[in-house]
Amino acid sequence: MQFQHSTLPNGLRLLGEISPSARSVAIGFFVRTGSRDESPEVSGVTHFLEHMVFKGTPRRSALDVNRDFDRIGASYNAFTSEENTVFYAAILPEYLPQAVDILADILRPSLRVEDFDMEKNVIIEEIGMYEDQPGWSAYDNAKKHYFVNHPLGNSILGTADSIRALTRDQMHEYFSRRYVAQNITAVAAGNFNWDHFVNLVGKACGQWPTGPVGRQGVKPATGPNTIQTIAKDKVVQEHVVMIAPAPAADSPLRHAADTLALAIGDDSGSRLYWELVDPGRAESADMSFHEYEGTGSFYASFSCEPDQASENLGIVRRVLNDVQKKNITAEEIQQAKSKIGSRVVRAGERPMGRMQAVGMSWTYLGQYRSVDDELQAFDAVTLDSVRDVMNQFPIDRITTLALGPLTKIV
Amino acid sequence: MQFQHSTLPNGLRLLGEISPSARSVAIGFFVRTGSRDESPEVSGVTHFLEHMVFKGTPRRSALDVNRDFDRIGASYNAFTSEENTVFYAAILPEYLPQAVDILADILRPSLRVEDFDMEKNVIIEEIGMYEDQPGWSAYDNAKKHYFVNHPLGNSILGTADSIRALTRDQMHEYFSRRYVAQNITAVAAGNFNWDHFVNLVGKACGQWPTGPVGRQGVKPATGPNTIQTIAKDKVVQEHVVMIAPAPAADSPLRHAADTLALAIGDDSGSRLYWELVDPGRAESADMSFHEYEGTGSFYASFSCEPDQASENLGIVRRVLNDVQKKNITAEEIQQAKSKIGSRVVRAGERPMGRMQAVGMSWTYLGQYRSVDDELQAFDAVTLDSVRDVMNQFPIDRITTLALGPLTKIV
Repeated sequence: MQFQHSTLPNGLRLLGEISPSARSVAIGFFVRTGSRDESPEVSGVTHFLEHMVFKGTPRRSALDVNRDFDRIGASYNAFTSEENTVFYAAILPEYLPQAVDILADILRPSLRVEDFDMEKNVIIEEIGMYEDQPGWSAYDNAKKHYFVNHPLGNSILGTADSIRALTRDQMHEYFSRRYVAQNITAVAAGNFNWDHFVNLVGKACGQWPTGPVGRQGVKPATGPNTIQTIAKDKVVQEHVVMIAPAPAADSPLRHAADTLALAIGDDSGSRLYWELVDPGRAESADMSFHEYEGTGSFYASFSCEPDQASENLGIVRRVLNDVQKKNITAEEIQQAKSKIGSRVVRAGERPMGRMQAVGMSWTYLGQYRSVDDELQAFDAVTLDSVRDVMNQFPIDRITTLALGPLTKIV
Repeated sequence: MQFQHSTLPNGLRLLGEISPSARSVAIGFFVRTGSRDESPEVSGVTHFLEHMVFKGTPRRSALDVNRDFDRIGASYNAFTSEENTVFYAAILPEYLPQAVDILADILRPSLRVEDFDMEKNVIIEEIGMYEDQPGWSAYDNAKKHYFVNHPLGNSILGTADSIRALTRDQMHEYFSRRYVAQNITAVAAGNFNWDHFVNLVGKACGQWPTGPVGRQGVKPATGPNTIQTIAKDKVVQEHVVMIAPAPAADSPLRHAADTLALAIGDDSGSRLYWELVDPGRAESADMSFHEYEGTGSFYASFSCEPDQASENLGIVRRVLNDVQKKNITAEEIQQAKSKIGSRVVRAGERPMGRMQAVGMSWTYLGQYRSVDDELQAFDAVTLDSVRDVMNQFPIDRITTLALGPLTKIV
């Protein structure tokens, strides 16, 4: 395993983790732009643009993009988050040149008006589909409620109205501003030759425009600490999401925060599991740590029959109060570490997993972290560092959102 | 990469693929029993028994099973198919002894009556949940329609009635007969010491009873070549499943069959994709090759608006006729090979993927096959071998099932 990095004259960064024993290679282009970088009038443009990237370039129709990926047997996709838009492909090593060529090409999309208009319907349909999923809708609304006056509260998909109002030129303006070379990192992991990769990316992306790029509103959030209820009589179960403040992505406390969340709310063997899921009080219950630039949050959630929702919310409050007061136990830390260790190692066994980890670690920390670095950091978590997390970020300070048949939850 | 195998005096087989560069290990217990081994009066018992295996032993309560897996950070699960019941866990290498101990222990379940009665409700609920999924229901009914008078037509879940009627003693009888040492293979892949593994399994499973075990009705199936319609007015879209005969799991033609199915019906860039999905005629369309002991089948399916279903069925028929007459093209073979190669390599990058592949290959072929063996076999596929498949198994001889609002499809 060997790490390399480099920067093109126009500012585009390149990262590579070379493992000669791998049999495939994963490539990703990380664009540091997401829903938090959107103004209200273009809400959803980042995600819509991610779709448009696959709709063709001066050299390729949408059909060609699809066919060219297929020809090399690529497993490819993209995702948009609050902070990043990532385009990636996993391939056999011999197809590295084609994969770089396609990915680099589509990242300069034509944004043709007719494609834009057609894709608009797809996006609006996707928004409708998600809105029909109460679990997702509760999560999205909880974020909006918690991140009030904070750009992390922006919806990734936008609304049907914001998408309908969006013009091709607004998207083009956003693209020109955010998809500049300095804001993009090309990452490869697996079996490949570093110089070859640098060469290919240099040729394909060396002419991309450069320009200033930034991010507004990088600041902590703590949430209003209130309860909001959204009544939906068509929804069968009550979906409750609770958000508490947590360390940011570059905090040295992030591994302790992850360990804490797992002990409280992993999908098996955690406090919430034993209190809510195992006895059948809730259909699902979990807690997890989400890290962002400048802030972080703990998300806890459960779904259950409406008449049990208030009691269950009380149980979660009691669990969180109890942990805040008395901390978790040494055995819980040990169990959480075993789980995390196993997950980190297994995710790192695939080039795809390493490509994502290397890209994210550079984006947030500006540094390379190996699987061993991560394992050691989790191994170093103690009862004291978990205590530190809660001293700085009280986990019982929760902002709550309930979505379902209830008009009120207490 | 090194392959080892051994057999305990009681007949239990052990397989291991050791890769010192891996950082985790996956262990699986393959029980060669599935829905095809059930008589009608115990329909669903195999899958129900898979659930009961996690409900405890003389040494462990259900809670202990869960806790003990959690303590070592295991990612564990099980599945039941027509022919196999597989229990598995992925762990860090240091936890090999605990993982073997837990898996071996739970494979001698107590089958307590009170657990049995409680779990019965879970199974019946699961059946209801699946029946509510029209795609799954269409597939299950299509199998029943195609495999008429053939044990592969048995439903894996059984019916609410068959499960309700099942007694704990019937399950125990099935367990005693099918979970004998000769019918079980313990497989490990990843970073572990072979002698240590043999020792652990020997100690844990050496006393398991031995006994004769077989499988009835291992014979080819060709389907009635008819159309059946199941009208469900609550279902919005029409779900159409077509089944054609194909090579068995031990046939030298299986790689060509896989390649053919991918060219016709992969989820992107295939004939069905371009004919049905890309132009928006169907929401989804695919074709895949399923291999069993003694026979195989091609499954093609699509779902769409009811008023387009008959036309779409005509299009699939035309595509299949056309390929049957004129074969696929050299370019399609090339593209399918790239895709399959990429998938085989990527699946083989994880111990979990290798454990499954090694176990399945031994179950069906009685031989070890490395990733390279598989890649070479796919690489050797030619237009002629694809032609051979269709000469022996005409892909246009389809048995069709439609489930949805329509009362008739033509």
